[in-house]
Amino acid sequence: MAEGLIQIGVVGCADIARKVSRAISLAPNAALCGVASRSLEKASAFAAANNLPLSAKVYGSYEALLEDPDVDAVYMPLPTTLHLHWALLAAQNKKHLLLEKPVALHVAQFDRILEACQSNGLQFMDNTMWVHNPRTAAMAQFLNDAHRFGNLKSVRTCFTFAADPAYLKNDIRVKADLDALGSLGDQGWYCIRAILLAANYELPKTVLASYEPVLNKDGVILDCGASLYWQDGRVATFHCSFLANLTMDITAIGTRGTLHVHDFVIPYHEKEASFLAGTQTSFDDLVTGWAKQPEKHTVHTDLPQEALLVREFARLVGEIKFKNSKPDNKWPTISRKTQLVLDAVKASIQRGFQPVQIHH
Amino acid sequence: MAEGLIQIGVVGCADIARKVSRAISLAPNAALCGVASRSLEKASAFAAANNLPLSAKVYGSYEALLEDPDVDAVYMPLPTTLHLHWALLAAQNKKHLLLEKPVALHVAQFDRILEACQSNGLQFMDNTMWVHNPRTAAMAQFLNDAHRFGNLKSVRTCFTFAADPAYLKNDIRVKADLDALGSLGDQGWYCIRAILLAANYELPKTVLASYEPVLNKDGVILDCGASLYWQDGRVATFHCSFLANLTMDITAIGTRGTLHVHDFVIPYHEKEASFLAGTQTSFDDLVTGWAKQPEKHTVHTDLPQEALLVREFARLVGEIKFKNSKPDNKWPTISRKTQLVLDAVKASIQRGFQPVQIHH
Repeated sequence: MAEGLIQIGVVGCADIARKVSRAISLAPNAALCGVASRSLEKASAFAAANNLPLSAKVYGSYEALLEDPDVDAVYMPLPTTLHLHWALLAAQNKKHLLLEKPVALHVAQFDRILEACQSNGLQFMDNTMWVHNPRTAAMAQFLNDAHRFGNLKSVRTCFTFAADPAYLKNDIRVKADLDALGSLGDQGWYCIRAILLAANYELPKTVLASYEPVLNKDGVILDCGASLYWQDGRVATFHCSFLANLTMDITAIGTRGTLHVHDFVIPYHEKEASFLAGTQTSFDDLVTGWAKQPEKHTVHTDLPQEALLVREFARLVGEIKFKNSKPDNKWPTISRKTQLVLDAVKASIQRGFQPVQIHH
Repeated sequence: MAEGLIQIGVVGCADIARKVSRAISLAPNAALCGVASRSLEKASAFAAANNLPLSAKVYGSYEALLEDPDVDAVYMPLPTTLHLHWALLAAQNKKHLLLEKPVALHVAQFDRILEACQSNGLQFMDNTMWVHNPRTAAMAQFLNDAHRFGNLKSVRTCFTFAADPAYLKNDIRVKADLDALGSLGDQGWYCIRAILLAANYELPKTVLASYEPVLNKDGVILDCGASLYWQDGRVATFHCSFLANLTMDITAIGTRGTLHVHDFVIPYHEKEASFLAGTQTSFDDLVTGWAKQPEKHTVHTDLPQEALLVREFARLVGEIKFKNSKPDNKWPTISRKTQLVLDAVKASIQRGFQPVQIHH
């Protein structure tokens, strides 16, 4: 076991675990120490298929991994419905927690998870990868620049993809007993997070769901949207869907600037990502063209965004493990705000598209 | 007077008349035969400042131009409040009518204008320039392509610009007795038109204004937005504003494709314009990038879009003048649908953000 590396175990062999296992291996301060499934066969097959390091252990139950004292932290790509149970067990076993999004079915559940982590001195982070891409930092810098962007007026986000019939029939994200929040929990989570980023993480005052989300026969959301309103007049809208072509946009408009991005969750390329930034864009004199256009900014990264996420998580765990620090509160706070807005969207849908106030 | 050219007179010396005068001169089938203002001095100054042809007459009143038998058609860039009066007088004088948008304060007024044109066998067209850019035809072709785009699911548009203090104090677009519809009539018109284009000109069923538009002290809209809903689940949203950085987007998402454009009203360049079109865009296997990205399509044009608009208007007028055809109904119908949606947005605002049904 290499000195100083945070030992991360993977609890569950979901498809996304393939990508995150690779990310753990790529992160310079973390090591993939094991993978657990509900059967040893599945865990072994996953380890073999994904070129896990030979040192990685395989476990035939989640409990076995959680009880292993060599494991510092766990990545948990389980269906949302199972988060509370397994997150509490992880905390009980003193494992730091990298949890797949949405973090919980509702914020009250998430607060129990957070409380369990905090009372055990454990780091919590959700697995929202794109916010760890250096492009996101560059976008945030632009959005917070009084000269280049000014004050936010409106932001629109979307994340849609066209799920195939097998996905719409079998995927955990369309099952009421697994990922009950459906597209809202999966894609809407990212849209809401992007809106919060643009709003400098200030929660909106009022959330109003758009009419007629599409639900499957079990009541799971396949397509929905909402508008968010702040006291000072800022407005946001988003749309998420399993039923439309792959699209992921942020358009944020400020008093002095505009941001456009078309691949915010998963950049087109792993090692570089771009956005369009316009400042005091303007027409020419006769209004037959633009005198000042938005400009393309490209940000390069050696590590893919998911490895940067793991590096950040392992860094925070390392602060606790090696330097006796307290768990960092920045990421859990952002997770909680995302869940609060998500809950409000769901409540607005359930109340027949009535406005829902967020109290904070 | 050149044989076969449609003789167009300009009624009013608004700023936009500079651009349209140039467009009339550029259109191969039209000639700028004169310009009228409320004083001969203003009309003469406009003619001199804008290099109008020496053959162009100047008139010290709108009536004088309207009564000139040499004038086939008029372009009317007057404030919205004046449209009804002068459009009816133009029709009475048998002048074909190119009218600035918004076409009227509400659809009942517009229907009187249309009726006057139709009963006199006159062509009506509104001055929405961008729909005559060949890029728009290419976008429409993409949006109507069952293979490349599929069925529309959602469309978001915006048109904002940051008006300076002088504009916000003095421009006709912020005056209750001139362009009383403010940003909704000016920029919202384009957003609604783009939404209708994406929806293949099918009117939405329900319109819901976004909360808290910004009004000036005279009640003129400076910033507003709305959501539009169709019976079959299509959703559209738009945002228009005089108070945010220059931005003009269409994002249309279909079951199989996505369209992005960032300069839909005024293309960045006069002679070429682009859009992004994605068909069955997809991630790579590990979801670390895109296997299939949207592609940029660029459309070239010899004539600027406003000259193409004039050419189309003059062509339709020529059909009537030289071939005894009936007035074309395509453009007036689209103008009317745009106004109907605009009226519904205004009604929703006035009713405290209640949904407004569009009956058709």
